[in-house]
Amino acid sequence: MFSNRITKLFNVEYPIIQAGMVWTSGWRLASAVSNAGGLGIIGAGSMDPHLLDEHIKKCKSATNKPFGVNVPLLYSGVEKQIDVIVSNGVEIVITSAGNPATFTTFLKQHGIKVIHVVSSSRFAKKAESSGCDAVIAEGFEAGGHNGREETTTMVLLPLVCESVQIPVIAAGGIASGRQMLAAMVLGAEGVQIGSRFAASEESSLHPDFKNAIINSKEGDTILTLKEITPVRLLKNEFYSEIIAAEKNRATVDQLKALLGKGRAKKGMLEGDLKNGELEIGQVSALLRKILPAKEIIENVWLEFNEALKKPLK
Amino acid sequence: MFSNRITKLFNVEYPIIQAGMVWTSGWRLASAVSNAGGLGIIGAGSMDPHLLDEHIKKCKSATNKPFGVNVPLLYSGVEKQIDVIVSNGVEIVITSAGNPATFTTFLKQHGIKVIHVVSSSRFAKKAESSGCDAVIAEGFEAGGHNGREETTTMVLLPLVCESVQIPVIAAGGIASGRQMLAAMVLGAEGVQIGSRFAASEESSLHPDFKNAIINSKEGDTILTLKEITPVRLLKNEFYSEIIAAEKNRATVDQLKALLGKGRAKKGMLEGDLKNGELEIGQVSALLRKILPAKEIIENVWLEFNEALKKPLK
Repeated sequence: MFSNRITKLFNVEYPIIQAGMVWTSGWRLASAVSNAGGLGIIGAGSMDPHLLDEHIKKCKSATNKPFGVNVPLLYSGVEKQIDVIVSNGVEIVITSAGNPATFTTFLKQHGIKVIHVVSSSRFAKKAESSGCDAVIAEGFEAGGHNGREETTTMVLLPLVCESVQIPVIAAGGIASGRQMLAAMVLGAEGVQIGSRFAASEESSLHPDFKNAIINSKEGDTILTLKEITPVRLLKNEFYSEIIAAEKNRATVDQLKALLGKGRAKKGMLEGDLKNGELEIGQVSALLRKILPAKEIIENVWLEFNEALKKPLK
Repeated sequence: MFSNRITKLFNVEYPIIQAGMVWTSGWRLASAVSNAGGLGIIGAGSMDPHLLDEHIKKCKSATNKPFGVNVPLLYSGVEKQIDVIVSNGVEIVITSAGNPATFTTFLKQHGIKVIHVVSSSRFAKKAESSGCDAVIAEGFEAGGHNGREETTTMVLLPLVCESVQIPVIAAGGIASGRQMLAAMVLGAEGVQIGSRFAASEESSLHPDFKNAIINSKEGDTILTLKEITPVRLLKNEFYSEIIAAEKNRATVDQLKALLGKGRAKKGMLEGDLKNGELEIGQVSALLRKILPAKEIIENVWLEFNEALKKPLK
């Protein structure tokens, strides 16, 4: 029985956290991961409070194991999401893309464990001093919204681990058991896996996007829209439009207008691979199969343990 | 006594290769690394054939151990450098920034071991089919010239390792024994360390630049000049000029004119920290001390072995 500060904090079998991702991780994925011994996370970023309420309630019916909710702090209506989380007795909240000082104290007063996603040791220290129970250190290779300093997982983890006393969870570029062990050798006590669960059977992504993920190759994702909020996505016609606009010296407002509303929903949920915003991590180049979440967890854990027994080639 | 395909290929004690870096790694650094049990590399990229000849001869007098020469293929006059290498009986050549098919057969015919630096599995396969003895897989976080696909070490290593049968050496983001073990868990059989040796006592860098490296923080390096040849450097006033030019829609020719000739020499060798091109890796944010090369090797190897005994926190 594996045990460290992360398995104890979450009361889970494996220190494997499924990333809470917009248009991807509803109650089906979160409960499947939790039932398999990892920590399932509902991604609140693409849900209005009513839908979030529904997903939390369905997740509770689908698993007796711990699960959490990810709340990106950059959207409006966050307070209402927080109310839904507290009133449903959710025990674990992951906050991202904002100031960890805003809600941590309030959430902790309600007995909720709070973890904040950071892209630098400076934010990790801020999360620790705000009272967070752990931080998720997310490298440049991660999908979706990302930091401006472009620090990769290989460099970010030692920096964050030497900066805080609370446990560190690694994110960005992790889809296999060997990558999990590499991250833990660098000081992490757990990993957050995004892209691989995005391409799982239980993810809410459109099947066409799931297939695009497992068929993607090296260099097919890019960190872009740096003038607005940096985001890693799969290159497509929408990305070509961004490049053309940038070449034409588009202003921030023009880029925001180009992005418009609902681009991520269009691509990720509705399967418009040409015009949608297809958020996904660099590690998708290593993914080949759409598997059930349980099988992903089992594969990662098996490979992690084999690598632990024989770390060198 | 540690032994694997890399220590056997190079006949060295430790699978630690010092990167051959322009204006950085002459005979002093290369011989110090080789004498300490790693593989020292003379960086030919900033040397004319006469100077290269001198450095190779001095390196031979300074060490009985194996050492190599790094030849970036993007500069003119490469043929003359190759002649100097062959006529001096150098046993190991690392080629980079070009086509591995160009010189590998010729070098191998002279009994020279050839290793090519790659930033993708596609180029790794090409290096293997060209007859290279090993490849160096270099991630986005590495200093100096870099690939266009921006694949990080965490993602690149598994991709390259599953693509070729020849041994893989990891580069990019590696400065410590834990980072070395992480890279080897991902399938590498050796590591190439750049920035940490750049900040060593024996490196030829200007003392002011060495101090700038060890005083740099997260986010202080950036991959830039992507319209010409992507290069990771320490941000300074020259970088601000690049940004300003890019905002003003500078053409490739205008950017080349801005870069001019001798920018790297000016910054790295002459210590003009404002106007020079200061090539260095992202891992410099983790460096704190200028040490002798021998101490760096000993520290990395000690930490690597401690991590191997206790990989998890």
